[in-house]
Amino acid sequence: MTKVLIDCDPGIDDALALALAAGSSLDVQAITTVAGNVGLDRTSANALALRDFLDMGDVPVLAGSPGALVRGLIHAEHVHGSDGLGGAVLPPPSREVTAGHAVDHIITTLHDHPGEITLIALGPLTNIALALRREPRIVDWAAGIVVMGGSYTRGNHNPAAEFNILTDPEAAAIVFAAGWTVTQIGLDVTLTARVTTAVYDRLRDLGRLSTSLLPSVTHYGVVTPDTGPAIHDAVAVASVIDPTLLTFTPAVVNIETAGVYTTGMTVIDFKVADRRPNALVATRLDVERFWDLLVSAYRELGRRIG
Amino acid sequence: MTKVLIDCDPGIDDALALALAAGSSLDVQAITTVAGNVGLDRTSANALALRDFLDMGDVPVLAGSPGALVRGLIHAEHVHGSDGLGGAVLPPPSREVTAGHAVDHIITTLHDHPGEITLIALGPLTNIALALRREPRIVDWAAGIVVMGGSYTRGNHNPAAEFNILTDPEAAAIVFAAGWTVTQIGLDVTLTARVTTAVYDRLRDLGRLSTSLLPSVTHYGVVTPDTGPAIHDAVAVASVIDPTLLTFTPAVVNIETAGVYTTGMTVIDFKVADRRPNALVATRLDVERFWDLLVSAYRELGRRIG
Amino acid sequence: MTKVLIDCDPGIDDALALALAAGSSLDVQAITTVAGNVGLDRTSANALALRDFLDMGDVPVLAGSPGALVRGLIHAEHVHGSDGLGGAVLPPPSREVTAGHAVDHIITTLHDHPGEITLIALGPLTNIALALRREPRIVDWAAGIVVMGGSYTRGNHNPAAEFNILTDPEAAAIVFAAGWTVTQIGLDVTLTARVTTAVYDRLRDLGRLSTSLLPSVTHYGVVTPDTGPAIHDAVAVASVIDPTLLTFTPAVVNIETAGVYTTGMTVIDFKVADRRPNALVATRLDVERFWDLLVSAYRELGRRIG
Amino acid sequence: MTKVLIDCDPGIDDALALALAAGSSLDVQAITTVAGNVGLDRTSANALALRDFLDMGDVPVLAGSPGALVRGLIHAEHVHGSDGLGGAVLPPPSREVTAGHAVDHIITTLHDHPGEITLIALGPLTNIALALRREPRIVDWAAGIVVMGGSYTRGNHNPAAEFNILTDPEAAAIVFAAGWTVTQIGLDVTLTARVTTAVYDRLRDLGRLSTSLLPSVTHYGVVTPDTGPAIHDAVAVASVIDPTLLTFTPAVVNIETAGVYTTGMTVIDFKVADRRPNALVATRLDVERFWDLLVSAYRELGRRIG
Repeated sequence: MTKVLIDCDPGIDDALALALAAGSSLDVQAITTVAGNVGLDRTSANALALRDFLDMGDVPVLAGSPGALVRGLIHAEHVHGSDGLGGAVLPPPSREVTAGHAVDHIITTLHDHPGEITLIALGPLTNIALALRREPRIVDWAAGIVVMGGSYTRGNHNPAAEFNILTDPEAAAIVFAAGWTVTQIGLDVTLTARVTTAVYDRLRDLGRLSTSLLPSVTHYGVVTPDTGPAIHDAVAVASVIDPTLLTFTPAVVNIETAGVYTTGMTVIDFKVADRRPNALVATRLDVERFWDLLVSAYRELGRRIG
Repeated sequence: MTKVLIDCDPGIDDALALALAAGSSLDVQAITTVAGNVGLDRTSANALALRDFLDMGDVPVLAGSPGALVRGLIHAEHVHGSDGLGGAVLPPPSREVTAGHAVDHIITTLHDHPGEITLIALGPLTNIALALRREPRIVDWAAGIVVMGGSYTRGNHNPAAEFNILTDPEAAAIVFAAGWTVTQIGLDVTLTARVTTAVYDRLRDLGRLSTSLLPSVTHYGVVTPDTGPAIHDAVAVASVIDPTLLTFTPAVVNIETAGVYTTGMTVIDFKVADRRPNALVATRLDVERFWDLLVSAYRELGRRIG
Repeated sequence: MTKVLIDCDPGIDDALALALAAGSSLDVQAITTVAGNVGLDRTSANALALRDFLDMGDVPVLAGSPGALVRGLIHAEHVHGSDGLGGAVLPPPSREVTAGHAVDHIITTLHDHPGEITLIALGPLTNIALALRREPRIVDWAAGIVVMGGSYTRGNHNPAAEFNILTDPEAAAIVFAAGWTVTQIGLDVTLTARVTTAVYDRLRDLGRLSTSLLPSVTHYGVVTPDTGPAIHDAVAVASVIDPTLLTFTPAVVNIETAGVYTTGMTVIDFKVADRRPNALVATRLDVERFWDLLVSAYRELGRRIG
Repeated sequence: MTKVLIDCDPGIDDALALALAAGSSLDVQAITTVAGNVGLDRTSANALALRDFLDMGDVPVLAGSPGALVRGLIHAEHVHGSDGLGGAVLPPPSREVTAGHAVDHIITTLHDHPGEITLIALGPLTNIALALRREPRIVDWAAGIVVMGGSYTRGNHNPAAEFNILTDPEAAAIVFAAGWTVTQIGLDVTLTARVTTAVYDRLRDLGRLSTSLLPSVTHYGVVTPDTGPAIHDAVAVASVIDPTLLTFTPAVVNIETAGVYTTGMTVIDFKVADRRPNALVATRLDVERFWDLLVSAYRELGRRIG
């Protein structure tokens, strides 16, 4: 069982990604939260509710950074709704966040399991950057790091930048320059997997999972026979469950922090030449197999939670 | 006959674009040169040689700016060869450049034919920017302006920037902010038209035109059954001959001049909302009809020049 | 007689500087105008009126750039009044601006008198930058260039930037990087010469000169026994009449064009080490002798114009 | 007794500042270290040695950030010597750093004594910024914050920037924007207090204090009758012991992080108008009384440590 620590800002697609993790063979060591799609109180509350609802047992949930490293906050309530889950109706959480700070927990967890745990970052990279600044050796301790964020073509929040990176570009710059090889799952691949009517139909009959989470999918975007919302974060989780779903291309990724129109852009150079690549960038997703994986995990989970 | 003034930096694809103009119904009022693919002396000498070789009569050729507005020079000899024409063998020019400065000539020509002349800019935008700074009313006098440059996905000289815009980003910023609606022909469409073996074969038997210019095409890139070099500038000229070859989408285009990794990027926002679009961005090219147009013009020209 | 060409944006202190030039031994070859303190129409009209009033004969006056090279305009009407001369009452000009563009005239004049003419730039550097871009050889043709602008401590328009440089930072960057050695007269010295009551009293009894121009001085700032307005541009002109009035220190001067809070700052490094200094920066002004020079020139001029 | 927490990077002038604190009435609650003048291992070791040598009892010493928030490191070994203390010979420390992280200790200490403790930051602001990001409420808990750094005229490491701010400009931006009123002790005042021969003579006969620390002073700069090294950090400590030594002017301070030549500059605007000042900037130091205070504290301390 692959051990993972999921840093996230639920968020609709974070929720769907956590569900994928919960229904899969991943061994989730902890969930840490960060401000992003909505504020930290909300992302933490959502993580707690999801832990219960998704039957994730005693996985610790720790709250982290309430805002970006250097800049002010940009939220995305217009996308995720004021509750961050697009109106998904979950039972209130039964437990509080675990005492302590997400950043410390990330460091401790990686330290205690050297070479075993893959970090999965589904929100702004503030927590990970702060962990790196406090304990640079996590680069060596982590088995890997998967980041949902950026793109090598166009952004979503603006023409140049994707939301997670834009929200904390300095944190992203720290994470990509830390010395490890980041697995980057960007919009280029996530936008190829759409919840079309056909996909949606496969997700309908999974009991409480369907009734509770599906409304957030349709809040996220309109489902039609040809297209529908993308659920970015789930692709990042899927890439850890089955890396063969994706094609990865080595690249040098720099984060623009000084542009007037381009701050938060992941500038991805595939012409690596004699430079050390700092990222493996997902450049193709086997969409069909991705949905198979997700549906199968959801079905498994649906059976479990009733 | 559509009147045009072509500002260029020949340059292999400039040469192929001028050949398209010469073989078409366009009425070329003047050719002005700018430093870009190679230095100004070279682009001017090439323009002169092309005027003779392409049988363009007395079209005046004027030299303009030897370098970018604010920054130092970036040449592309590695792409275009030290002569700028990839070793195309043209007879030496019979005449000198016309006295005067390209910038003045652009202003005077537009002034003398208000509403009649379309500017076609195939190189860095230094001359056009300087003309705008000297005489802002050219915005009203020009019938239109077509710019080969930029992209809304990725660059060519680096991941973010296309060569013409990168070479003089401040000039590009001036041109896109001048108040007119720029027709932008970017890499997104130009890279869809490749000189494949099939295309190449259609260009072989056109007499001196073929023997002189085709070597530069193969210098520019490898021709295979599946792909081959793109000839960017020719698409810009084609767009004036037959605008129906392309789909244009209104957009707000800003030029990044402050980024560390993104300077020279055209940041193209198709979500115009209530802002005035400052550009019509080419988003699709009918590749087959483009080659038909080009081959037909070249054939016509080939007959003329023997 | 030292030949000079004065590029300016009158402007109260430009007017006082032109009066100094007119009353001195300088041989003013031309006055060129640029937008700055007020718009170009106003600076040109003021230059024309001053030529007549100051009895400068047939010195040609040519209009130049209506705005900064790359950025929008920043005027200083709040300092100079809507007429640019703080309400100084001059007779309307008897003649129009000379036909042609200031930038061309700068180039031609320098070309025709190689090594003889010192450029004195009293406004934003747009015209000089455009002249450099059109004809880089003016660097060799000019006998020297004196710029009123910048500072090595603090700005005036904001904490970092002086008005002339801030108004067109890219132009300033071009001028300081052009290869010549710029004589920079910055706020550090100009602010040491104040029109105190004592100075003011020496300027009172000079006939029409006093009655017409002195009101602009008091518009510019409050005259007290201890302090009063500085007349920056006059120091620049004085530095050409008698360079021994000032101490100059070699420096490497860079112009910030990318800062959020510091764009338009002249970053002046006196630690030249093995770099070639691109400027001689005025670091001390003999204030008493400066006023002696100015009063003596004004007295001479006052006698002439009655 | 005023309670203080001193965050520092010893560093020669840090050492002299700690000596001033030790000999004064200040109640030092903790010393936290940061990379700056030299690396973190060195600044921590120096802090430990100084605690012993200066007879500071059980004041906890905690290590913090090994490098700047976003950027790479800039050390100043050329100024402070490879040991950071300019060859001052101190006995090796008898104890290790206290377990835990400086950032946590800052937060806890402020939390436990709300409204009582003044932060004194003598190095790059990395620790303080990280503390703010982890616990924004320290703004309310701190009795005040005094920063040695920046200037409103010129820098020292380059023409625009002072070393502490330049070393971590993003951290400085966070600290100045945090909502509290920063007391800024910049180069403008610290450079007015020089260890001249006269001052040096007053520091000679203080026993071990003199023999151990004075060599570092002369390492720091040449002592002459007219001038000598400035000991910046000691002025910051003095400002807490006796605020009447200085004149403070309210200002809006912004930190430039995007300039090419000006990053790390404190852009200080005294024209506050209707904006809330975020700093009280020291604009004058009573140099004589400052030396009196320092000599008196050193004498007291010298007696104590023999």
